[in-house]
Amino acid sequence: MEVLITGGAGFLGTKLARALLAKATLAAPDGTQQPITRITLLDRVAAQGFDDARIATVEGDVADPAVIARVLTPQVNSVFHLAAVVSGEAEADFDLGMRINVDATRLLLDQARRNGNVPRVVFTSSVAVFGGELPEQVLDSTAPTPQGSYGAQKVIGELLMSDCSRKGFIDGRSIRLPTITVRPGKANKAASSFASGIIREPLNGIDAICPVPPETKVWAMSPRSAVANLVHAHEVTREAVGNGGAISLPGLATTAGEMVAALARVAGPEVAQLVQWRKDEAITRLVGSWPGSFVARRALRLGFVGDADFDAVVRAYMEEEMGARA
Amino acid sequence: MEVLITGGAGFLGTKLARALLAKATLAAPDGTQQPITRITLLDRVAAQGFDDARIATVEGDVADPAVIARVLTPQVNSVFHLAAVVSGEAEADFDLGMRINVDATRLLLDQARRNGNVPRVVFTSSVAVFGGELPEQVLDSTAPTPQGSYGAQKVIGELLMSDCSRKGFIDGRSIRLPTITVRPGKANKAASSFASGIIREPLNGIDAICPVPPETKVWAMSPRSAVANLVHAHEVTREAVGNGGAISLPGLATTAGEMVAALARVAGPEVAQLVQWRKDEAITRLVGSWPGSFVARRALRLGFVGDADFDAVVRAYMEEEMGARA
Repeated sequence: MEVLITGGAGFLGTKLARALLAKATLAAPDGTQQPITRITLLDRVAAQGFDDARIATVEGDVADPAVIARVLTPQVNSVFHLAAVVSGEAEADFDLGMRINVDATRLLLDQARRNGNVPRVVFTSSVAVFGGELPEQVLDSTAPTPQGSYGAQKVIGELLMSDCSRKGFIDGRSIRLPTITVRPGKANKAASSFASGIIREPLNGIDAICPVPPETKVWAMSPRSAVANLVHAHEVTREAVGNGGAISLPGLATTAGEMVAALARVAGPEVAQLVQWRKDEAITRLVGSWPGSFVARRALRLGFVGDADFDAVVRAYMEEEMGARA
Repeated sequence: MEVLITGGAGFLGTKLARALLAKATLAAPDGTQQPITRITLLDRVAAQGFDDARIATVEGDVADPAVIARVLTPQVNSVFHLAAVVSGEAEADFDLGMRINVDATRLLLDQARRNGNVPRVVFTSSVAVFGGELPEQVLDSTAPTPQGSYGAQKVIGELLMSDCSRKGFIDGRSIRLPTITVRPGKANKAASSFASGIIREPLNGIDAICPVPPETKVWAMSPRSAVANLVHAHEVTREAVGNGGAISLPGLATTAGEMVAALARVAGPEVAQLVQWRKDEAITRLVGSWPGSFVARRALRLGFVGDADFDAVVRAYMEEEMGARA
């Protein structure tokens, strides 16, 4: 089994690669578990920190047809398409968002179709496909009404994935990720970047600014659960997935205020006091347009997993990224 | 006011052009009614039958950037984007469907954005955006789950329209047309082509084959109502449209069997007996995946109109296309 991960040098891509190396096998097109012989990590920069003969790093533009033809050969039976321009950046640069979030996805699907081996393709969509006037809880049957370019582009990706699966060009599985928190490293241009920053920065003894009010709803998922769900999305059978389109994952319904309260409980009030509340109108508008809660019935039926509570999410970050035992 | 109609030589485009010539004015960007000085009809073939100095016909490929740059100048404040590859053809030729239904739409929106004059753009989406497991009646909040490439491509068009409107590149209005019947002329490659053929052919004394069973549900609209709704989609205010995405029009819930029964009532049983029922599995599958009934609350609130019953639809065809007084 050869595997391609786009956005493979990113935080989730790297974590996913490690999980796949540890798992060592993946479902082949015939459903049997087969050894993973190669994982190609495609990204703008080379993925770092791997010392495993199965890992190949490729630096390249995911929207460049020559790059895609090089990394997506007929030997690749598993694709995890994580490469994306994040919400804040897609909103600021419409053309860049279209190029990476739409054109690159289409390129990948076109190449898979030409290869003719019907690879399993896992596509990461997002809670940001929903927006505007929403029901209290978003259902599997709720229509996406994105209020940002990122969300619109992700729905387009879902539709391409779904139609190409129906046509038999690929065996696609799109999952809508909740806001992933706590991400390690630095803040990024995602409007949801604060959801990691308000936990990560204080834990590292640094002041954090929360640009949204405490009552702002967040539909959250830990990186650990996200990676488990990415793998599960690949492994679940085609019959179980069906033609129902993208799968909204079972996140954790919380708020910015509750997240900081969990931080206080797990790491102490003096840590939580490093969070400063300073509202940013643009971020609050974008984040506030996303739904705070879902009934993720289809995902739960298919065996996808969520986090128990936000205290556990904070603890997982401390264990995995800080080497702490909280 | 300069107007562009893509697909302008088609049946709906031609009818729309005649309606606009008769109306003589359209809402300008500032909301005031302004005289229509020019209507450009873009299509692969030149539109026929016009003798009006305001009509300009352009033969060209709607997916060719040079053609779009030529017809969509900053003087054009109103665009009716009707050009499309129909359902049966988009299903048979995936690339052609993507090129005309997706790429051409994007080209048009990109050109409008470059022009900077924020034109009103009316986009014709379709009932075919819905499919698969659907509620008994489709609501405005029901998620599109297209089961054909045409439907998927139309949802992508809706999303591009909606996001470009939100960004202020255009003032877009997407309407989901029911199955338009009775179309004059010849059968086309739309899977729904039978819905016109089973009325039109018998009225012209010709045998017609109905490829779907009598109980097949059809969400129908007469060409007259469709044209009225296209004009209304242009005229309704931006505030009323809002950011809610495409508008499902108020069709008429009928069945293939009821349509032929209406034909018998209006034109006589000997005419209706010219319909032969001979099931085509592919067409039945595609048509059967579309919803048969909607609660078109948003459209009705916005003043869009439907047809009273199918007898009236048959009569309208006889009056408009056959010069008959039924």
